Amino acid sequence: MRKEKDMLGEMLIPDEAYYGIHTARALENFHITGRHIHPELIKALVMVKKAAAITNAEVGLLDKNMSNAICGACDEIISGSFMEQFVVDPLQGGAGTSANMNVNEVIANRAIELLGGNKGDYSIVDPLDHVNMSQSTNDVFPTAVRIASIKMLKPVSELFSQLQTALQEKEEEFSTVIKVGRTQLQDAVPVLLGQEFGAWAQAISRDRWRIYKVEERLRQVNIGGTAVGTGMNADRKYIFLMVEKLRALTGIGLARAEYMMDPTQNNDVFVEVSGLLKTSCVNLSKIANDLRLMASGPRAGLGEIALPPVQAGSSIMPGKVNPVIPEAINQIAFQVMGNDLTITMAAQSGQLELNAFLPVIAHNLLEMLDILRNGIEIFINKCIKGIAANRKRCREMMEESYVQVPALIRHIGYGEASNLAKECVAENKKLRDILIEKAVLDSETIDKILNPLELTKPGIPGMGKR
Amino acid sequence: MRKEKDMLGEMLIPDEAYYGIHTARALENFHITGRHIHPELIKALVMVKKAAAITNAEVGLLDKNMSNAICGACDEIISGSFMEQFVVDPLQGGAGTSANMNVNEVIANRAIELLGGNKGDYSIVDPLDHVNMSQSTNDVFPTAVRIASIKMLKPVSELFSQLQTALQEKEEEFSTVIKVGRTQLQDAVPVLLGQEFGAWAQAISRDRWRIYKVEERLRQVNIGGTAVGTGMNADRKYIFLMVEKLRALTGIGLARAEYMMDPTQNNDVFVEVSGLLKTSCVNLSKIANDLRLMASGPRAGLGEIALPPVQAGSSIMPGKVNPVIPEAINQIAFQVMGNDLTITMAAQSGQLELNAFLPVIAHNLLEMLDILRNGIEIFINKCIKGIAANRKRCREMMEESYVQVPALIRHIGYGEASNLAKECVAENKKLRDILIEKAVLDSETIDKILNPLELTKPGIPGMGKR
Amino acid sequence: MRKEKDMLGEMLIPDEAYYGIHTARALENFHITGRHIHPELIKALVMVKKAAAITNAEVGLLDKNMSNAICGACDEIISGSFMEQFVVDPLQGGAGTSANMNVNEVIANRAIELLGGNKGDYSIVDPLDHVNMSQSTNDVFPTAVRIASIKMLKPVSELFSQLQTALQEKEEEFSTVIKVGRTQLQDAVPVLLGQEFGAWAQAISRDRWRIYKVEERLRQVNIGGTAVGTGMNADRKYIFLMVEKLRALTGIGLARAEYMMDPTQNNDVFVEVSGLLKTSCVNLSKIANDLRLMASGPRAGLGEIALPPVQAGSSIMPGKVNPVIPEAINQIAFQVMGNDLTITMAAQSGQLELNAFLPVIAHNLLEMLDILRNGIEIFINKCIKGIAANRKRCREMMEESYVQVPALIRHIGYGEASNLAKECVAENKKLRDILIEKAVLDSETIDKILNPLELTKPGIPGMGKR
Amino acid sequence: MRKEKDMLGEMLIPDEAYYGIHTARALENFHITGRHIHPELIKALVMVKKAAAITNAEVGLLDKNMSNAICGACDEIISGSFMEQFVVDPLQGGAGTSANMNVNEVIANRAIELLGGNKGDYSIVDPLDHVNMSQSTNDVFPTAVRIASIKMLKPVSELFSQLQTALQEKEEEFSTVIKVGRTQLQDAVPVLLGQEFGAWAQAISRDRWRIYKVEERLRQVNIGGTAVGTGMNADRKYIFLMVEKLRALTGIGLARAEYMMDPTQNNDVFVEVSGLLKTSCVNLSKIANDLRLMASGPRAGLGEIALPPVQAGSSIMPGKVNPVIPEAINQIAFQVMGNDLTITMAAQSGQLELNAFLPVIAHNLLEMLDILRNGIEIFINKCIKGIAANRKRCREMMEESYVQVPALIRHIGYGEASNLAKECVAENKKLRDILIEKAVLDSETIDKILNPLELTKPGIPGMGKR
Repeated sequence: MRKEKDMLGEMLIPDEAYYGIHTARALENFHITGRHIHPELIKALVMVKKAAAITNAEVGLLDKNMSNAICGACDEIISGSFMEQFVVDPLQGGAGTSANMNVNEVIANRAIELLGGNKGDYSIVDPLDHVNMSQSTNDVFPTAVRIASIKMLKPVSELFSQLQTALQEKEEEFSTVIKVGRTQLQDAVPVLLGQEFGAWAQAISRDRWRIYKVEERLRQVNIGGTAVGTGMNADRKYIFLMVEKLRALTGIGLARAEYMMDPTQNNDVFVEVSGLLKTSCVNLSKIANDLRLMASGPRAGLGEIALPPVQAGSSIMPGKVNPVIPEAINQIAFQVMGNDLTITMAAQSGQLELNAFLPVIAHNLLEMLDILRNGIEIFINKCIKGIAANRKRCREMMEESYVQVPALIRHIGYGEASNLAKECVAENKKLRDILIEKAVLDSETIDKILNPLELTKPGIPGMGKR
Repeated sequence: MRKEKDMLGEMLIPDEAYYGIHTARALENFHITGRHIHPELIKALVMVKKAAAITNAEVGLLDKNMSNAICGACDEIISGSFMEQFVVDPLQGGAGTSANMNVNEVIANRAIELLGGNKGDYSIVDPLDHVNMSQSTNDVFPTAVRIASIKMLKPVSELFSQLQTALQEKEEEFSTVIKVGRTQLQDAVPVLLGQEFGAWAQAISRDRWRIYKVEERLRQVNIGGTAVGTGMNADRKYIFLMVEKLRALTGIGLARAEYMMDPTQNNDVFVEVSGLLKTSCVNLSKIANDLRLMASGPRAGLGEIALPPVQAGSSIMPGKVNPVIPEAINQIAFQVMGNDLTITMAAQSGQLELNAFLPVIAHNLLEMLDILRNGIEIFINKCIKGIAANRKRCREMMEESYVQVPALIRHIGYGEASNLAKECVAENKKLRDILIEKAVLDSETIDKILNPLELTKPGIPGMGKR
Repeated sequence: MRKEKDMLGEMLIPDEAYYGIHTARALENFHITGRHIHPELIKALVMVKKAAAITNAEVGLLDKNMSNAICGACDEIISGSFMEQFVVDPLQGGAGTSANMNVNEVIANRAIELLGGNKGDYSIVDPLDHVNMSQSTNDVFPTAVRIASIKMLKPVSELFSQLQTALQEKEEEFSTVIKVGRTQLQDAVPVLLGQEFGAWAQAISRDRWRIYKVEERLRQVNIGGTAVGTGMNADRKYIFLMVEKLRALTGIGLARAEYMMDPTQNNDVFVEVSGLLKTSCVNLSKIANDLRLMASGPRAGLGEIALPPVQAGSSIMPGKVNPVIPEAINQIAFQVMGNDLTITMAAQSGQLELNAFLPVIAHNLLEMLDILRNGIEIFINKCIKGIAANRKRCREMMEESYVQVPALIRHIGYGEASNLAKECVAENKKLRDILIEKAVLDSETIDKILNPLELTKPGIPGMGKR
Repeated sequence: MRKEKDMLGEMLIPDEAYYGIHTARALENFHITGRHIHPELIKALVMVKKAAAITNAEVGLLDKNMSNAICGACDEIISGSFMEQFVVDPLQGGAGTSANMNVNEVIANRAIELLGGNKGDYSIVDPLDHVNMSQSTNDVFPTAVRIASIKMLKPVSELFSQLQTALQEKEEEFSTVIKVGRTQLQDAVPVLLGQEFGAWAQAISRDRWRIYKVEERLRQVNIGGTAVGTGMNADRKYIFLMVEKLRALTGIGLARAEYMMDPTQNNDVFVEVSGLLKTSCVNLSKIANDLRLMASGPRAGLGEIALPPVQAGSSIMPGKVNPVIPEAINQIAFQVMGNDLTITMAAQSGQLELNAFLPVIAHNLLEMLDILRNGIEIFINKCIKGIAANRKRCREMMEESYVQVPALIRHIGYGEASNLAKECVAENKKLRDILIEKAVLDSETIDKILNPLELTKPGIPGMGKR
């Protein structure tokens, strides 16, 4: 154990710990979720630290050796080492101070080692004076959350694109499967099974686009703004160089916010991102609901499609296969919607120069991105791609239904068509049979009008090219 | 037009207006929803005013004649007159001050008339000095919101009771309709249609009970607490008498909060009520969803029940009847859940001695109660009571399904039962036929085991009383 | 009274009513909120009807005279007549069927009158066969909701722009008011009051932009798609012409959705709009909170600014002026957030070819737009524009605080600066006095370092142009 | 590696794994959150398994040796062993099937070992036929979630009680600290700092009571109901004995639901619990907000109280101590509110005989309970208990304010009092000085009326016992 000291007094820190006293205080103060900060956020924080070390050296504020050692420590972490040293709880008070200090301390102690010193000997590299030089939690943390969000948005956007493609492949595959369309869960007019997948694909394409576009807004960072965004205590050259370095390190087109006080205190951008992820979940949930409905059965349900079985369904009902992947998607959607609320509430609770609740925003946003990425991947590969149409069932239900009735309106009027529909239901007959029986129209005309494939396209049935 | 004056200056008030300058200011300041405050809340406010006039006179603070005139004005309003005079917007800043002043002014001007004066001559009866005597918006408004809520909870609780009864009558009516039970929308084991209504009735009975019980918490009022709940400026006798009078006038078992500062600033009770209404909507929405699902069809859906038609369904599809009542219930549920969020956010935003956001809480809570009352009434009378079972369809689907498979587990093992189920699906055969064909069990045993009615009750099928 | 008939039987309709039996059924079925559909939505529905009448005539499906009469009726309604005839409840089951039928019937009956007939004589103009020709509720209603939303978004976007300007004018006005910046409600570093308004203006500029851009997505309409978006029963020429006509009538750059089945069933666009409005409310609420905080007092609060008084504050506390406008803004924000949840839940509950819950989506979305428009207008004119700085108070608090301490870090180190800060607090001394007393730095250097105006800009205090 | 087989085929399972093929499938299917199921839920599931093993043996369905081995395995897990074997993701499709199977498999394999066999030799103990005997996921999982919730509610209820006590101790401690009361953040009337803590304690006492009472509803379990709650395939004696055994094992007063189909499909009880936890967070958040406000400063804020410092506040501002514990409480509240939404959405999405989304409900509910328990404990011990009053500051602000003005109303009228208040503000004078100066009242009367301690109690100031 080594002794460390802060304004509250001394504490013993385990010898093997790369974190120091500020982290140890945070551990005592915030045992809340028992979880750790998302690795992507840790990496983003470390990238900020590395960029700062380089920049501070370049503008002559930081000794070159020290800068090199800090960069070395940062590189090790970015490549995956020392992850177990980032121990502070994601639900921490203090606008990210503990996260920032945890990162400062781990980097400092590793840099000390790289310079041949012993952990805790902050005369060699100091977490605050050197690793945190020219920075404040209030510019470091919001910047890092933006970087991590962008990094995690990319694969989600890409997966939405893949989902769109997968749905469109099914649109193609099922482009000849005629079935009963349903509005308000009541038999309506004929549609193609492929069209249903096509409509979903359209919605997903909007989600992809939304998520792709929102990245733009996240690129405005406040690094260099220090405590409140005014840039007090940050060298002017540092401020301008810093974003360049960070852009190079992260590979993201970051830009310094014109008005750095704004992103220091305003978190509407995260609410926007979260709101768009929520929007995408409305679509995912709707698709999952429809799939579960269309796959209901096998005998006493709609049974229009079969989902690929991925596990035995039931511990009591032999042979049952359940739609577990869409069910997971629904649950992911519910989770995302809950997280969106948390983010909204936290974002609207900012006060004056800072929003102290960014930690809970970051935690929920990165979780949303994680579960969406994982969920969509499963959805594509373990569900959508393996869906099979039950063509026979679709055709049979089509034949038994009377969803071609609207095609008759222009030929026999709404009122008469309505009467025929009622008769179908009441006497349990097929529409065609009644038409023939009543000699309402001749057989050839009937065939022209009721041609189901034509009924899935625009135009007035039985009236040619109109 | 008459001239009135306040701390900001003079204003012209229409001669016919019973409200005065404070109301006129509020009209200018808060043109937000374009709506008015709920009549039940106006009446509750007026009851508080009447109780105060009586009490103030009784403890010797208010002239008897003036008290009588105020009471006369109050009685007229309570019986429905002057409702058009309560014009302030329900989404008003100021913790209800404008609502309180609107009421004070209308009462004052009407009392002035009753005493032979002209509207606006506040030397006869003053809105603040006399109608509002011993009161503050901060004790009047929270007390009135509680009174209005209780008044409106009663019919909702009663309607939940009626809904429970209606569902139980259907439970009885459908107690012999055997059908396929479904879990995860997959065919599972046999159930009675009646049992499904019975399960819903159980959930609704909890809602009824919750709503009934929560009234208790609403009965604690802070009237007498004045500005912050300390009771400053309120005569002690007044404080004690006031609740008695109000109890008598409202017919509700109100009690003075032990600690009046608490209900002045804390609105958790409304969040609790709202949360319980939200909980009830989870059940209503689930029932509505199930009804829409079971009534899907008529041909290409489950078609197990028929909802009573209440209007033509479609402007394009003749003969279509849609489940519009359950759809309305779903929408009411969504609305209630949104309102619950609004209430929650407003309640958690209170600061120090007061929650300035009680107006939006009241507005949303009373709206929830309104639409729930109206919705449940429709649900019972235009939907539940008229539901018919499609017994034939239920029986047919039962016969075609293989949901009796679990009954075989104890007789032939889980593995073998699972194989049979797969064979049913793959070869599109009926379970009984396969059992006979394979001579797995003799015909008599099969009949005993697969007796569907027995399968809806506890016990191991085909093993007698076990 | 006149008799009308539908598939459920006959009903008596008041002679003066322009609506007919379908509306009357809806009145019986859906007494829920007691409110009416938003006039902008009614007008949008009527514009669709007019465009359809013109188009149907142009493609030869509808008699010219009839078309003219229908257009005449539509024009009257669009110019504000007959509004009291649109009586159906906004929370209606049935995906908007009742709203559509209410409009069909009023137009038909008025057109009948214009053609010299009597209301109810649908042989002259039929609500379904003529007014609703080539249409379905399922393409009419979603199209109209988009039109109404766009119409109502425009002024909101414009008002956000005005709000931004108003804030920036204050940024300019207060550009010399130095004050204590606060993070986590603790005194931090100096800022300009103007900078605070500037940071808000930045956030609002994003809101303006978001709302402006989202209009694009709303422009894709499904009119011509009829029941499920396949366009069944709609003449092909009609489909292509219809959007043109509607574009001309509405003055909005509408476009036919490429895949009309998509907007018929997917409502993610409304969730997106709603989510962005919610995002804007996060900013509005944050600004309102800050204003209330900064205006707290007059004596025992921060007292840095004074909001313009708009009404007497209190019925018990003479002379009190409350921040009622920001309080209204907060409540509007809470309401919008609740409505957003309702919309989200309704949108994710769509099933298969249709979302039956569009009525509750429309109701909540249009309400959000209404209260935002009204609220922002009040916010600008009755609050922001009249805000005055309390320069004396700002300066005094600045002098008493020790927020210049960070400026010393580079000169005396973090540890020493920290000790000085503690001493300030413990001994209740001013920072400058201690520095002089301890002779830490010479007086000239102190003045250079602690120059408060410099401290609100980027750079290392006392180090010149760095 | 060992081979295992299910209906989808064979899979290799690591030799050291106690889980089997069903768990392995779930691992492949549901890599979503990367987290594990809450240990309390695992323990609750295992208790159900143990109770079932005992009961099945007692009613003669299960071999005694096998039952003993199963019980032995269960006991080991309950005492904390094998926790790393419960690997399935909490956000799993399938209503808990994977969780149930994970538990069945681990128990089976451990029991096999205890009986001298090798893992995977299910002829000795079978996960489905023996460990899951007489059960279904659909009765096991809902029952276990209830048990885990009750176990975790108890400490939360107890901590609310401790929080109430801690607040009341401060009420006592600060019972003589007179300060400015504030409504709408404006100076209002005098209050005692102790009264503020007292008002919070009242709110918390309601929370405690609510959480205590809701346990009742959770005690109704559906174990014995099997797949849909009808009890099919469960021996009748088993059904009745099972709850008894489970009651004994858990120490919780569980009762069999009268209507077991109800808790199998309805999850309103969890929405109720969640809603009450959300309600409690409204109070926690309000208290945290108030504390942060009252502790704002040290110089340029209210500064009425000092929170105990628990860590250094800032990486850039030396000496700053931030209210990190209340900030954590706020964030916990936001998280709980988000989780409540997730639970609500999941609960209202149940269909027919089952709610497939119980896993996400359980995950969110148990997380809420975890973070609330941890959070309240921190709140009490690291914040509330160490709060100190800044008596000097409270007194000074009191003296500078004019919050005694309402005390004058009965003596000089509302209008005159209002004028005096305005004069205080305008001329920056103290109220007492103006009263003397103007000779409005004599000095003795002034002292009687303005006695601040009296002003915090009910009654008309300066009028004796009234």
